[in-house]
Amino acid sequence: MKLSARLFCTVTFLILININLSAQDLQKYFPIADSIVASSVLNRTGYKWLKELCEIGPRNIGSQNLERAIEWAKQKIDSLGFKLTLQPVMVDHWKRGNFETAVISQSTKFSGKKLNISAIGGSVGTPENGITAEVLEVKNFEELRNRKNEANGKIIFFSRPLDPAELNTFAAYGNAVDQRTRGALVAAEYGGVASIIRSVTTKYDTVPHVGAMRNYVDSLPKVPAAVLGYADADFLSNALKEEPSLKLTIKLDCEILPDVQSYNIIADLTGTEKSDEYVIVSGHFDSWDKGDGAHDDGGGCMQALEVLDLLKRLDLKPKRTIRCILYINEEHGLDGGYAYASLSDSLKLINYAAIESDRGVFTPRGFTADIDSANLSVVLNKMQSWVSILNKAKIEWIKKGGSGADISRIKNSKALIGYVPDDARYFDLHHSDNDVFEEVNPREMQLGAAAMAILAYLISEVGLE
Amino acid sequence: MKLSARLFCTVTFLILININLSAQDLQKYFPIADSIVASSVLNRTGYKWLKELCEIGPRNIGSQNLERAIEWAKQKIDSLGFKLTLQPVMVDHWKRGNFETAVISQSTKFSGKKLNISAIGGSVGTPENGITAEVLEVKNFEELRNRKNEANGKIIFFSRPLDPAELNTFAAYGNAVDQRTRGALVAAEYGGVASIIRSVTTKYDTVPHVGAMRNYVDSLPKVPAAVLGYADADFLSNALKEEPSLKLTIKLDCEILPDVQSYNIIADLTGTEKSDEYVIVSGHFDSWDKGDGAHDDGGGCMQALEVLDLLKRLDLKPKRTIRCILYINEEHGLDGGYAYASLSDSLKLINYAAIESDRGVFTPRGFTADIDSANLSVVLNKMQSWVSILNKAKIEWIKKGGSGADISRIKNSKALIGYVPDDARYFDLHHSDNDVFEEVNPREMQLGAAAMAILAYLISEVGLE
Repeated sequence: MKLSARLFCTVTFLILININLSAQDLQKYFPIADSIVASSVLNRTGYKWLKELCEIGPRNIGSQNLERAIEWAKQKIDSLGFKLTLQPVMVDHWKRGNFETAVISQSTKFSGKKLNISAIGGSVGTPENGITAEVLEVKNFEELRNRKNEANGKIIFFSRPLDPAELNTFAAYGNAVDQRTRGALVAAEYGGVASIIRSVTTKYDTVPHVGAMRNYVDSLPKVPAAVLGYADADFLSNALKEEPSLKLTIKLDCEILPDVQSYNIIADLTGTEKSDEYVIVSGHFDSWDKGDGAHDDGGGCMQALEVLDLLKRLDLKPKRTIRCILYINEEHGLDGGYAYASLSDSLKLINYAAIESDRGVFTPRGFTADIDSANLSVVLNKMQSWVSILNKAKIEWIKKGGSGADISRIKNSKALIGYVPDDARYFDLHHSDNDVFEEVNPREMQLGAAAMAILAYLISEVGLE
Repeated sequence: MKLSARLFCTVTFLILININLSAQDLQKYFPIADSIVASSVLNRTGYKWLKELCEIGPRNIGSQNLERAIEWAKQKIDSLGFKLTLQPVMVDHWKRGNFETAVISQSTKFSGKKLNISAIGGSVGTPENGITAEVLEVKNFEELRNRKNEANGKIIFFSRPLDPAELNTFAAYGNAVDQRTRGALVAAEYGGVASIIRSVTTKYDTVPHVGAMRNYVDSLPKVPAAVLGYADADFLSNALKEEPSLKLTIKLDCEILPDVQSYNIIADLTGTEKSDEYVIVSGHFDSWDKGDGAHDDGGGCMQALEVLDLLKRLDLKPKRTIRCILYINEEHGLDGGYAYASLSDSLKLINYAAIESDRGVFTPRGFTADIDSANLSVVLNKMQSWVSILNKAKIEWIKKGGSGADISRIKNSKALIGYVPDDARYFDLHHSDNDVFEEVNPREMQLGAAAMAILAYLISEVGLE
């Protein structure tokens, strides 16, 4: 006991000495962090860019808006003086079309009641006169399996809400979103003629929250998939309790189109010593065709771009190249993420580390880092020793965890890092008409840009070894 | 060196053993915290109460709204089954009146331009035909002192903004608010005929953000005090650069009225073992006469009241009495705060600890605690050992710091504690028409109520000794 206590003490003491020495080395980064935060919050540059971007409209794949937005980004990057690269990427193309309606069409009590509905991305449309059928409400796939004898010829209504008591709203979303991604496929398996779901959201309003579904498979009928606003799902659920045999008519004229070419937009602030090593800051440039795509992920893109501008503005010349990637088509297939990872493999790019902002641009909380197990403790400890510097931008912690969908495909990085703002409000807005510029708070967004800039700069200068 | 190292190691080791033992004792509070958070976030009870309260309208001192709101609170507390006490308190009474206008009245270029203006609480009105005068713009009292020869007969315009680069928005507010609290007194000292200020806000819109000024003194003329919207202050500032001799006419018909009687509203969940020891949870029930007073401080009040209801709902019977105090007149003199402290002194009440929520009801960050120096390390260490439990409600830290204005007058408590939500958005709304129910996010507010409930319960059960 005495020996192990002494050993423990010695180790503790050495660790403390080591922390103390590192702390001295890090002192110079406190005033730098202060200046980054001050410039970010004072000038609100990224926020002003986001306003311009949102005024173009939502940036769904295949849309003219997206083309205009890419043109806007090119000009912005040129005007800021960063090296611009456009990486061509073939992307899925799906179009909502001109109408999407749901109405209770046959019912003694509810006939004529309209429900707010939107097609789920990737869905086929309905015949021109719609699909009219009885509705089978289930909470999950297992319940549908248990009630498969009731499913044939019906519209399957997956009505399980996002669990409001799950405090990690991303986890809550993850636990409910299978209804959206796989509902139409599972419905078809049991003879359903369409799939409708309750919006996967924390907000109890009438706005449908859309998103992507998995591609259809050839072995099953392609049945349409759509989503109701939360309150409309409640209405339908209550109506079905009173009158289980009511019929619903849904009409959707969305369609799946051939793939189109788009681009990953890449801007570089070239490093002074290790210009071939990239510290990536990123978001995804496409959005759904609802709202402005302000939080998802226009804001994250503008934060990433402002990282370069903040360092340039403050004449901080990073050793490594800070590379901003505005990925294309995260929403419907992650095409841009796969394409950049593939390019990196073929060109043997050194993507030293990558940061993504794709959880909204709310007030900063922390960063989560995906690090391979061999380097985990070294890299994580190193980053955690920076928390007091990052706290200048209200970062409270750095933990092991996921990164971002787009960067998650990159191989051989020291760390893939997700920026984690507060998550209370994100799924109020996500993939819906609620996701507009007015919901972005400039101070919160700018603190996030500053946090990413400080972290990218520290990774560039101090390194992760 | 070796000896001190060994001593250090021994102490470290003992501390670690101690923390470990405490950690075991605390295990049972994790599931309790989970259930408090789940019930709070799932039911949104306080948020629903806040909606009812905000529908009554703003709760400014002396208003019929406030009387109606007090009646509402009494009925709510009765219906919840808590012991209700109304403590009579005499409070200041000031009334905005029917009009408040500002117009550039004599100018070659800007004549007729109206500016958004509101009287500052406690100001006298103007004569019926207003005050028309040239404007002297200064940034602070020192500049006015240096330019005192220019001040006589003019409207003094204090235009210093809240420093947007100061990251603690409450500190930034504190550094700018002297213009509001003392501007009219200082202006009068140098012969100014009125004082107008730039809104002390983080939002750059046209909405005036009001608040209280210090009482006039008999030795100086009583000149009116008013506040311009941020953008209007910019407009005036720019206009003055072009045309320094322009004249402004301001009209205010506010008035100072005799004190009136109101009440601190007190609700008790009686303790099972130490019912004479109070763990206070609180907010202030009055608001300014702008918006709904949703964040300041209707939300804080509903969080405090829900602490009692959460514990009751979950059948958690606290040893100490959990006392909810909805203080009256924080905004214009802290009358309720002084009155409860005075009552406590005369009745020798044991206010074991007190928590106040009066920084908005945004997403939780931490708690700050005001503890007398003799007990500081013991009490703070004890509370800090609970952070991992409080983190269930997204609390990241507990630090030494201020508490809340109302509870700050209480003597002999073990700890006076301020609930600290995120501060990025608070001064966008504070004391203005922006502070409405729609700006409250239910999840953020309910996490705060849960955080306060967990802390109050831990203080009651574990104690702070």
